Amino acid sequence: MPTATMKALRKMRPEQGAQLEAVAIPNIGPADVLVRVRAASICGTDLHIYAWDKWSASRIKPPMTFGHEFCGTVERVGEAVEGVAPGDFVSAEMHVNCGHCHQCRNGQPHVCQNLKIIGIDQDGCFAEFVCIPGRNIWKIDPAIHEHYAAVLDPLGNAVHTVLAGPIAGQTVAVTGCGPIGLMAIAVAKACGCAGLFATEVNPHRRALALKMGADEALDPLATDVVGRVRAATGGTGVDVLLEMSGHPDAIHQGFQMLRAGGRASLLGVSSQPVTFDLVADIIFKGATVQGIYGRKMFETWVQMTALLKAGRLNLEPLFSERLGLDRFTDAFSMLQGGQAGKILFYPNGVQR
Amino acid sequence: MPTATMKALRKMRPEQGAQLEAVAIPNIGPADVLVRVRAASICGTDLHIYAWDKWSASRIKPPMTFGHEFCGTVERVGEAVEGVAPGDFVSAEMHVNCGHCHQCRNGQPHVCQNLKIIGIDQDGCFAEFVCIPGRNIWKIDPAIHEHYAAVLDPLGNAVHTVLAGPIAGQTVAVTGCGPIGLMAIAVAKACGCAGLFATEVNPHRRALALKMGADEALDPLATDVVGRVRAATGGTGVDVLLEMSGHPDAIHQGFQMLRAGGRASLLGVSSQPVTFDLVADIIFKGATVQGIYGRKMFETWVQMTALLKAGRLNLEPLFSERLGLDRFTDAFSMLQGGQAGKILFYPNGVQR
Amino acid sequence: MPTATMKALRKMRPEQGAQLEAVAIPNIGPADVLVRVRAASICGTDLHIYAWDKWSASRIKPPMTFGHEFCGTVERVGEAVEGVAPGDFVSAEMHVNCGHCHQCRNGQPHVCQNLKIIGIDQDGCFAEFVCIPGRNIWKIDPAIHEHYAAVLDPLGNAVHTVLAGPIAGQTVAVTGCGPIGLMAIAVAKACGCAGLFATEVNPHRRALALKMGADEALDPLATDVVGRVRAATGGTGVDVLLEMSGHPDAIHQGFQMLRAGGRASLLGVSSQPVTFDLVADIIFKGATVQGIYGRKMFETWVQMTALLKAGRLNLEPLFSERLGLDRFTDAFSMLQGGQAGKILFYPNGVQR
Amino acid sequence: MPTATMKALRKMRPEQGAQLEAVAIPNIGPADVLVRVRAASICGTDLHIYAWDKWSASRIKPPMTFGHEFCGTVERVGEAVEGVAPGDFVSAEMHVNCGHCHQCRNGQPHVCQNLKIIGIDQDGCFAEFVCIPGRNIWKIDPAIHEHYAAVLDPLGNAVHTVLAGPIAGQTVAVTGCGPIGLMAIAVAKACGCAGLFATEVNPHRRALALKMGADEALDPLATDVVGRVRAATGGTGVDVLLEMSGHPDAIHQGFQMLRAGGRASLLGVSSQPVTFDLVADIIFKGATVQGIYGRKMFETWVQMTALLKAGRLNLEPLFSERLGLDRFTDAFSMLQGGQAGKILFYPNGVQR
Repeated sequence: MPTATMKALRKMRPEQGAQLEAVAIPNIGPADVLVRVRAASICGTDLHIYAWDKWSASRIKPPMTFGHEFCGTVERVGEAVEGVAPGDFVSAEMHVNCGHCHQCRNGQPHVCQNLKIIGIDQDGCFAEFVCIPGRNIWKIDPAIHEHYAAVLDPLGNAVHTVLAGPIAGQTVAVTGCGPIGLMAIAVAKACGCAGLFATEVNPHRRALALKMGADEALDPLATDVVGRVRAATGGTGVDVLLEMSGHPDAIHQGFQMLRAGGRASLLGVSSQPVTFDLVADIIFKGATVQGIYGRKMFETWVQMTALLKAGRLNLEPLFSERLGLDRFTDAFSMLQGGQAGKILFYPNGVQR
Repeated sequence: MPTATMKALRKMRPEQGAQLEAVAIPNIGPADVLVRVRAASICGTDLHIYAWDKWSASRIKPPMTFGHEFCGTVERVGEAVEGVAPGDFVSAEMHVNCGHCHQCRNGQPHVCQNLKIIGIDQDGCFAEFVCIPGRNIWKIDPAIHEHYAAVLDPLGNAVHTVLAGPIAGQTVAVTGCGPIGLMAIAVAKACGCAGLFATEVNPHRRALALKMGADEALDPLATDVVGRVRAATGGTGVDVLLEMSGHPDAIHQGFQMLRAGGRASLLGVSSQPVTFDLVADIIFKGATVQGIYGRKMFETWVQMTALLKAGRLNLEPLFSERLGLDRFTDAFSMLQGGQAGKILFYPNGVQR
Repeated sequence: MPTATMKALRKMRPEQGAQLEAVAIPNIGPADVLVRVRAASICGTDLHIYAWDKWSASRIKPPMTFGHEFCGTVERVGEAVEGVAPGDFVSAEMHVNCGHCHQCRNGQPHVCQNLKIIGIDQDGCFAEFVCIPGRNIWKIDPAIHEHYAAVLDPLGNAVHTVLAGPIAGQTVAVTGCGPIGLMAIAVAKACGCAGLFATEVNPHRRALALKMGADEALDPLATDVVGRVRAATGGTGVDVLLEMSGHPDAIHQGFQMLRAGGRASLLGVSSQPVTFDLVADIIFKGATVQGIYGRKMFETWVQMTALLKAGRLNLEPLFSERLGLDRFTDAFSMLQGGQAGKILFYPNGVQR
Repeated sequence: MPTATMKALRKMRPEQGAQLEAVAIPNIGPADVLVRVRAASICGTDLHIYAWDKWSASRIKPPMTFGHEFCGTVERVGEAVEGVAPGDFVSAEMHVNCGHCHQCRNGQPHVCQNLKIIGIDQDGCFAEFVCIPGRNIWKIDPAIHEHYAAVLDPLGNAVHTVLAGPIAGQTVAVTGCGPIGLMAIAVAKACGCAGLFATEVNPHRRALALKMGADEALDPLATDVVGRVRAATGGTGVDVLLEMSGHPDAIHQGFQMLRAGGRASLLGVSSQPVTFDLVADIIFKGATVQGIYGRKMFETWVQMTALLKAGRLNLEPLFSERLGLDRFTDAFSMLQGGQAGKILFYPNGVQR
C-alpha cells in the first residue's frame, strides 16, 4: 500500500513555470489502475505548458500535474479491470476515448470526438503515481528496455506516421528532426525505405539524423533542399513526405519535394495557418495527404512492440539526461536550448 | 477514305475567341487511330481557352484545334495498333502518358511526368476527325447511349473522385455543382452513399443537384451550410467531402463539414492559393486529403463502363443543346451564362 | 421492475428439441444491460441447436436459452455502463470479445481468441429478457423499422461480406440464397454492383433472389451456371464471388466463375473439408480469398445503420411469420422445410 | 551488327533433355528489342521443361529455346520503341500481356487473359540473343550488380509475395526455402518484419535460410513446426504466411501457424489438389488468402529496384556456379540434386 502523499510536478497557477508539490496519491475507480512511475519523458507539449503559451492558457486548468510519457509498475488495480495485475510493468495510451461516438464505433478511437488526455486534461505522470483507466494500460514485453518503454508515446507518433502508407522501397523526406522526426527516421529505415532525406536547421539534430540512419541530413538555410532531393531522385521527387516540423517553410519545401502520386503524412503542428498552391502541390499531383494524430488504438502499439521486440529500432542516440523530479528546472532549461535529446525523469529515484 | 480537308474549331491567335477553319484531315502514325467525331462536349477548360485567360496564354500554342470530350467511329487504324478496327464506336482517354517515367511504371500513369493532353497540347476533337494513339482508344459498350459516350471524360473525373475511397454507407458533401459535381452526385448515390449534401450558389444548378439525387442542395450565400450539415449528421460531420468548386470559401466550408477521420477528395481547380488551418482542418482531425487528377488509366474507365452498362447512372438532366460546330458562338455564350448543362457539338451533322 | 421469472425457450438436455420454461430473470453485473426482448429472429445456427447435430453436441452445454438475433428495450443498466439508458431501443453484437488478445488490440476484435457468443455459450434472446455487456449494446436509429432491427446480426454478416472489398461497378456472383445470401444481394445492389448472378437450388429462394435485385437467379442443377456466368461477362468471369452456401459444389462453381484477379469472400460454413485446385482456382488466377466471420466491431454496424437509415435496403420479401415463443414447434418445422423466410418471435407479445 | 547465327539451348523434341544448337539470331519487329544475353539464371520451371514432365508436355511446343531469367545489353531497337537504346544494360518482364483484356485495362496486367511467356510460349534467353517487346524491357539501375540483375524475375516473385500486404512489425512464416523462399526471407527482413520462421526439409536450404535472415529454420520432419511457431508467438500464430513450397503438408502446417485475422500469400505451385478445412483454416479465422502470380507490371519492378539500389538485400548466399551454355548438362544435374543455389549461364562467355 502506498503512503498517503507523493511528490508531483504541478502547474499551480496560470503562468510560466511549475512547482514540485506533495499531493495525495490518486484514488482509483473500479475501472482504473494505479501505476508507480518508473521513468517519465518530457514532450514538446510539456515545454509549452511549462512556458505557458497561448495554447496552454486555453487548455490547461491549474492546479494540475502534467506529463504524459512514462513507464512504471502497477501498484493497484480496480475491481472491474481484467488482464492487469499488481507488479506488471506497463506504459499507457494517455488519450482516453469515450467509446460511444461515431469514430469510437468506427475503428478510429484515436480521433474520438470526446477525447481526454491524461497530463493535459487531468493529472499526469510527472509524479510518483499516476491513475490510468484499465483499458488504456499497455503491458510492456520483457524484451523492451525500460528507457525505451518511457518513450512509447512519441515513438508511437513516429510509427503511426511512417506506417500510414507503404514504406518499403519508398524514397522518403523527413522535414524536421525533433525527437519524433528522429524516431521516424529509425522506423522508416527499419521498415525498408529506400533513400531517406532529412531536413533540419539545427546542426546537432542533423548529426543525430545521420546517426538514426538518414542518408542525407540537409540544412534548408544553407542548401536548396528541394533541388537537392529532386536531383537525388532523378528529378522525380520522393515517394513519401513525413512532415514533422509544423514550420510553413518546411511544409512548402516538403510538398515541392514530393513526387506526383506521392504520400504526405503530416504530424508537425503548425502554430499558424498555412497557404497552399492546392493545384500544383496536391490536385494535379494526385497526392494523398494524411493528417496524423496520436496513435491508432491499439494497432500502433502492436506494431511498435513488434519492432522493438525484434530489435529493429536503435533509439540510443536520442536519450540524454536522467534526473530526479527535483531537477525539473535544469531539465526544462536544457530542452529550451534545443540541444538535449529525450530527458527522463525518475520520480521514484534515478537508476540506470 | 475521308476527303482531304475537314472543318475544325480552332484557336488561331493568342486572343479571345475561335474560328471555324478548313484544315487537312490528320495523318496518322503506325500506332495511331483516326476517329470520325460523332459528338463532342464542351468542358470548362474549353471556356478558358475560348476566353483566353492567363492559364491558356501560358499553355496553348495557336494555331490549334481544341476540344477533348467526344465519341465517334473509327475511320482508319495504324498498322501497329491491335484490338481496334474501322467502324468501332469509341471514345478516348485524352491524357497521353509517356510510358517510361516513374509514375507510368508504378501504376499511376494518370500523373505521368510527361503528360500531353489532346485538345490542349495537340489538335483535339472539335473537328470532323481526330487522331488518337491506339492505346488511348476506349471501345464503347453497345449498351451505352451515344450522348453519354460523349461525356466519359468528365464522368470519369466524377467516378475517379467518388471511388477514390469507400462510399457505401458514407455521408457525403459535394461542394460545387457544375457538370462534374452533378455527375459525382449521381455516382455517389448509385454506389450506396448515405445522406448527400450539395452546396452551390447557382439556383439552376441546385435544382439539378436535387434531380441527380442530392438529399439537400444548400445555398452557401443564404444558409449556414456548415451548421446545417453538422446538425444533419448529429454533430459529427460528413464522412466524405467531394470538392468540385475550386472556390476557397467552398473548400473551407467543406473541411469544416468533414468529420474527424474523414476523407476529402479534391478535384476542383482553384485559381489562387488557399490557406488552411492545417491543425484543425487536417492534422488533429486525422483527415485524409486526396488530390484527384484525370482518370485512372484505365481502372476508372472500367468502373464507369460497368456502372453505365448496368444502368446505374441517369445523366439525362445534364444535357442541353445539340449543335453543329458552326453554332460555336452560341454554345460558348450559353455556357458563359452558367445556365446551360452539357452542350454537344455534332461536327459531322446533328442527329438525335 | 420486471417480475421475478420470465418465459424462455431452452435446450434442457443433450437431445433434439427445446422447451419453453419459466426461469429467473437474469441478474446483471455492473457492466451489463438488461434488455426486454421485442422481437427475436431464428438463425440457421438455432436450427442446428434445435436439431442437436454434431456441432451442437460439441459446443452447447444444456440447460441454456438460445437465440442471438433480436431487438428490444433497455430495462435496466449496470452502474459502470455509459451511454445507455432505460427505454433505449437497442440490438446487440452477440459476439463478446475479451479485449486483451492480439486481435482485440489489433483492430480485429471480431476474431478475438477468446470469443464468447450469447445464445450459444451463454443464455440468449429467445426469452422475455436477455443480459448483454454494455459495450455490446447497439442503439437503434429511430429511422430503422422494428422488424429490421431484429435481423441486424445476419444483415451484418451480409454487409461485412459485401463490403470486404470494392463492390461499386463490380460484377458479382452470390452462391447460395439463404437469408444472408438474399440480404447480400440487396446490399450489393444498393452499393452499385454491376451484373449480379445468384445460384440456388431451391426455386422459392431463386424467386426471392430476383425480388432482392439479382439480375439472374440460376439453378445449378438445371443450368451450366459457370458457362452462363462466363458468357454473360464476355468470357471474363465475375469480379466478386460472395460464397453463402458452404456447399462444396457451389464453392467450386463459384471459383470457376471468378475472374483472374478477382475477390472471393467466403461466409458459408461447409460441414466437410473442401478440395481446391489451388493453382488454377487461386494462385495463377491471382485471386484474393477472404474468410468472413461475424461483423466488424463496430464498423459493420455503422455501415449497416447508414444504409438502413438512408432507405437503401428493402428487406421486406425476407420476412414471413411473426409468432409468440409458444409457437416454437411450428416455427422450427416451417424453417426445416426450407420454404420460410425469417420468422420472428415476439416473447413479450406479438404486435405488427 | 551480330553474326547471322547464335548458340541456343533448345528443347528439340517432346522428351527429356535439351540440345545446344546453332540457330538464326532473332529478327525483331518494330516494337521489339534484341538483347545480347550477359547472364541467364535457371528457374525451377526450366528443370520441369528439361525433365519433360506432364505440365511441360501440355504447354511447350518444340523446337524452342527456353530460359526466362536474364540480363544483357541492348543490341538493336525497333523503330517504334521509345526510351531504350543500344548499349543499355537491361533485364525484362518475360510475361507479355495483351493490353486489351479486362485485367490489362484494370491495373492487373500480370493476370492478363492472353498472357504469353517468353522462354515458355516463345523462344527464351538461354541463347546469345533474345527478342523482347520494347515495353517489357526493364533498364537496370547502375547501382545493381550484374548477377543480381540476372535473377530479377524470381526476386520479383519474392517481392510481390512479401509486399502483397503489410509486413513491417509482422511475424512471418515462410514454408519452403527454395530460391524464391530464400529471397522472400531477405525481403521480409529488409522490410521490417518481426520474428521470421522458415520451414524446410532440406538441411542445406535451412542453413541458407538462416544466412538470409530467418530467426528460426525448422525441419518439419523432425519438429512439430506448428507447435513451435505457436509457442514462439505466445499462442497466437504468425501474422503472415508466405507459402513457397506448393507441398500439401507445408500448406496445411502454414495455415495452422497462421493467426486469426492473418494473411496467407501463396506462391508455391502444388502439382495436385489440396484439401482445406475451410471453416477452421480460413472462414472462422477471418483470414485473407492471396494467390500470387508473376510480378506486378511494373510496380514490383519499381519496388525491387528501390530495395536493391538502397543496398537492402544481400542475395550473395544464393549464388553458386557460373557456367557457359555448353555446361548445361552439369547445371541441370546439380540442380536436380537440390544442393545448388542459383546457377548462372553466360551464353556470351563467363566472366566474374
